[in-house]
Amino acid sequence: MNTIRIRFRFFSVLDERLLRPFPGATARNIRIGLLRAMGASIGHRVYIGQGTRVINPKGLVVEDDVTVTRDCVLDARGGLLLKQFVLMGFETIVITHTHRADRFGIPIQNQGMFEKSIIIGERVWLGTRCIVLPGATISADCIIGSGSVVTKPLDDMAVYAGAPARRIGSRTGATTTP
Amino acid sequence: MNTIRIRFRFFSVLDERLLRPFPGATARNIRIGLLRAMGASIGHRVYIGQGTRVINPKGLVVEDDVTVTRDCVLDARGGLLLKQFVLMGFETIVITHTHRADRFGIPIQNQGMFEKSIIIGERVWLGTRCIVLPGATISADCIIGSGSVVTKPLDDMAVYAGAPARRIGSRTGATTTP
Amino acid sequence: MNTIRIRFRFFSVLDERLLRPFPGATARNIRIGLLRAMGASIGHRVYIGQGTRVINPKGLVVEDDVTVTRDCVLDARGGLLLKQFVLMGFETIVITHTHRADRFGIPIQNQGMFEKSIIIGERVWLGTRCIVLPGATISADCIIGSGSVVTKPLDDMAVYAGAPARRIGSRTGATTTP
Repeated sequence: MNTIRIRFRFFSVLDERLLRPFPGATARNIRIGLLRAMGASIGHRVYIGQGTRVINPKGLVVEDDVTVTRDCVLDARGGLLLKQFVLMGFETIVITHTHRADRFGIPIQNQGMFEKSIIIGERVWLGTRCIVLPGATISADCIIGSGSVVTKPLDDMAVYAGAPARRIGSRTGATTTP
Repeated sequence: MNTIRIRFRFFSVLDERLLRPFPGATARNIRIGLLRAMGASIGHRVYIGQGTRVINPKGLVVEDDVTVTRDCVLDARGGLLLKQFVLMGFETIVITHTHRADRFGIPIQNQGMFEKSIIIGERVWLGTRCIVLPGATISADCIIGSGSVVTKPLDDMAVYAGAPARRIGSRTGATTTP
Repeated sequence: MNTIRIRFRFFSVLDERLLRPFPGATARNIRIGLLRAMGASIGHRVYIGQGTRVINPKGLVVEDDVTVTRDCVLDARGGLLLKQFVLMGFETIVITHTHRADRFGIPIQNQGMFEKSIIIGERVWLGTRCIVLPGATISADCIIGSGSVVTKPLDDMAVYAGAPARRIGSRTGATTTP
């Protein structure tokens, strides 16, 4: 655990300060190389934008052709799989590790943590500034509108929006715009 | 297109790194001067806060007396007009360019992009950390509560809030607080 | 007023640039020391994460054992009290000072500001990226889901979520996960 934290920390610092002098494409290559060196499994033609923070790269699997834009947070402590062609808008946060809160009257800080993995299916589009909470796996071809908070698994191929995210339309038919 | 990207990128870098050594007022003047040099039309007594990112300044028109606070994103690729006395809270994002998503089973990355301009009317107050999506023009004197996601045009002079933003009150009567 | 602004500004700069070369724990100690020097009252075993911005530290009272994670905004211009064991997720914003908007047809910028203090009760857990608006005091043991916008006082010990935040469950019973 300690090792993981130190490793992540190291990456975080590199990403925000040491990579900035490099031109964009070079910085992206270094970023992906570092993530792989730290244990992440990252496919071909993957784009990870500047400012994106990865917590515990060892738990991260990114398939081919995934696009993660800038300033996202990928918390892979509980395991995070981004399947082929996932597209993540900027400032989106995916969390797989959080506090327990079963008991009241007891500080949250003293209740321990839990982890729940997340799988984001093929061709899912998460809009700008979404939040995906532990265990909220998203099935293939879903579209999640900008600013949504995904709190539980989304099983149907559909369009979701809101906080918490609710189904607002199907993928068959009119144009949908997150 | 390529030129626009390079220009924006250049601005982005200047804004975040080169302007920081300057005191606030000087940095703001340089920022506005750079935006004008890059093609934006910016009126008198305009305030643009630190950390604000402008995508395609050529498409941006800002009238007099507009206040854009810090850490906003103004995406002017599809055309963005901020009318007189617009007030934008910090971390607000306005997007005029995004992905098509008409066809399912096909990666969003392969469906192309579209643009839709946005006009934000006179004296509109957008609270902190709002998101305004392509085409979501806002009429004069609207107030948009903090954390709202504006997904379609708002035609009435009213108070809106939520994700997606819904009318929650009129501008005539009690004090409203985004 | 001027003094306060200058002081805050000084802190802001220190936080973002001068503290970065220091290792995490040292930076945290310096940050808390600076906040105290600027007039904040901060208890024992308090954690304030990197990138957190404090507006008017003079108005801030933080009791023992509080955790404020990274990249939060604490606006203490109207007075802000975080009681023991408050836990604040990253990118959460608490605002106690904002614009008046009573009169329409008049620019918000010309209507003046108002302040309303906020008290966040013992053991409250605010999830990631929440917004708490002026006067929206939160009673002890509440849990506020990630991405919520708290617009008015929350008086019951309960679980709240959404924008604006609504009661979605009690603290007695099943596990709750912001």
